[in-house]
Amino acid sequence: MKSSLDNMRPTIEKIDAIMRHDLEVIDNPLLAQVIEYAIFNGGKRIRPMLTVLAAGLCGMDDSEDLYRLALSFEYLHAASLLHDDVIDHAKKRRGKTAANDVWSNTHVILAGDFLHSRAMRLAGTLGGQDCLDVICQAVAAMVESEFLQLQNAQRQELSEDYYFRVLRGKTASLIAAACETGVIFATGTMEKRTALAKFGAHLGLSFQIADDLLDYLGDPVKTGKAVGNDFQEGKMTLPLLYALRQNIGKDEDILLELLAGTPSQRCSSFAQVRDIIAKAGGFAYAKQQAQGLINEALLGLDIFPSSPSKEILALLAAYVLERNK
Amino acid sequence: MKSSLDNMRPTIEKIDAIMRHDLEVIDNPLLAQVIEYAIFNGGKRIRPMLTVLAAGLCGMDDSEDLYRLALSFEYLHAASLLHDDVIDHAKKRRGKTAANDVWSNTHVILAGDFLHSRAMRLAGTLGGQDCLDVICQAVAAMVESEFLQLQNAQRQELSEDYYFRVLRGKTASLIAAACETGVIFATGTMEKRTALAKFGAHLGLSFQIADDLLDYLGDPVKTGKAVGNDFQEGKMTLPLLYALRQNIGKDEDILLELLAGTPSQRCSSFAQVRDIIAKAGGFAYAKQQAQGLINEALLGLDIFPSSPSKEILALLAAYVLERNK
Repeated sequence: MKSSLDNMRPTIEKIDAIMRHDLEVIDNPLLAQVIEYAIFNGGKRIRPMLTVLAAGLCGMDDSEDLYRLALSFEYLHAASLLHDDVIDHAKKRRGKTAANDVWSNTHVILAGDFLHSRAMRLAGTLGGQDCLDVICQAVAAMVESEFLQLQNAQRQELSEDYYFRVLRGKTASLIAAACETGVIFATGTMEKRTALAKFGAHLGLSFQIADDLLDYLGDPVKTGKAVGNDFQEGKMTLPLLYALRQNIGKDEDILLELLAGTPSQRCSSFAQVRDIIAKAGGFAYAKQQAQGLINEALLGLDIFPSSPSKEILALLAAYVLERNK
Repeated sequence: MKSSLDNMRPTIEKIDAIMRHDLEVIDNPLLAQVIEYAIFNGGKRIRPMLTVLAAGLCGMDDSEDLYRLALSFEYLHAASLLHDDVIDHAKKRRGKTAANDVWSNTHVILAGDFLHSRAMRLAGTLGGQDCLDVICQAVAAMVESEFLQLQNAQRQELSEDYYFRVLRGKTASLIAAACETGVIFATGTMEKRTALAKFGAHLGLSFQIADDLLDYLGDPVKTGKAVGNDFQEGKMTLPLLYALRQNIGKDEDILLELLAGTPSQRCSSFAQVRDIIAKAGGFAYAKQQAQGLINEALLGLDIFPSSPSKEILALLAAYVLERNK
């Protein structure tokens, strides 16, 4: 298998084509330019793809309306990345200059607001009340989870429970909503909605853990991102959290001292930190967690009969673990 | 008449009570605190009040659902002020430290996103598809109009047509949507929807012109804002635009030179600029435009039979012209 995503190429292309068409609603050429830059930058379209696949799993054929509904999730994802980049004063996004650096915070905040509102409109128009509820709940969960982090910004929160709480709101809720929305569009039962929302949540958590791992172990040529960003920023991701919970004696002091230090100290000690985490089994543990979540996600698909959509969803789940970018 | 707004005190109090109750949906105490600070800061609740009054005009009795639907417009308004304050690096909002200065840009961008999404959810849930369409169109118009200004940031656009185009998107569209939403909720005819949307748009334009006038002529004790901000920022508002279009010889050179100069030069010449605009008839012209718009707005109410709501809407229109804060 070259890459599981290859099977989805036609779906991705269809999403992109319908998205380009949908964005023609924008009048102002500068706004159109900012949004084009933010959206067509090599994103993997995982969220809208999940909506389409979830509907397919419930026996719904592809239709333009389904794809347009699915765009909501790409728009919301893009809006949240835009606002995140302003918040983080980001310089780069997917290897390119971040939009806030090409234009300004003003452009980017407003473009995010536009996408946000477009997403809601598509959700409400094409998916009805239930979809709008699901999508708005996901946005609320994202914001609440960011605030949970803001509240804890001063102290280093070392519990795994806290790590997963933040992740559920920040990443998993929108992916779960993308899946659930596909079932709603296909008028699937509540049992199916719950099953797919769980599938999405587990997939999302696993996806984020894989991201955490790539930030330590990824190949910058493939990911387009330097390694070590998370540690440099003092982010407590799963491999590091696990290492700190083991009895690693002097190594623990080294990690804690670096975490209390400056970003540049953390940056220059990155190779050493990676070795410490590896020795403590942090990477192996995180991989095992991600694998466990994917297994749980796949179990959630059991109630659905075999179908091409189910096969692709399973491949997508596998991709989360294999991906190297 | 002490103030036309006195008649609306019970409505405003009811809006506030229902809003406090609605905001209990927020889990995170820090998010709740930021939103409380941003919302309960002496706002006049004009937008939700318009929704309630527009529904009343169409014979709909007050109900909790109507009020909750009306909150959408206060939330969207608050969200746009929050994002504006980040964009403008605002230090003050209504005489108090701006939320971005009390907390941070991060808090404020995210709180705005939360309110945005809550507004959409209430609109879609309580007003249905048509309300969601109207509200999302208004948000799109707001963003497009901000981008129109960004595009023209480099050159001073002196046409009145441009001034009104920006205003329609920036202020009038949301107020028009607030009015139209009330009619939709009351299942009014398309004729009534159009009439009330026009009423709202005219009211909104007039409201903004009145704001422009207060920025030159207001009493800081009453408004809680220093005068001269617009000119200091080089904002081309109606009184100034009018003055520049007259044959005022040397005075025109003074204005243009100051506009090409620095904010602090503009600040220290404010009294002189105000005299020039007054002599050129800029304030009188702007007042007359605001009056004309209010007259047009009132004409739009003609198709509705007499009712307490109609009376209050007329008083509200009058208030726009009289208000001194």
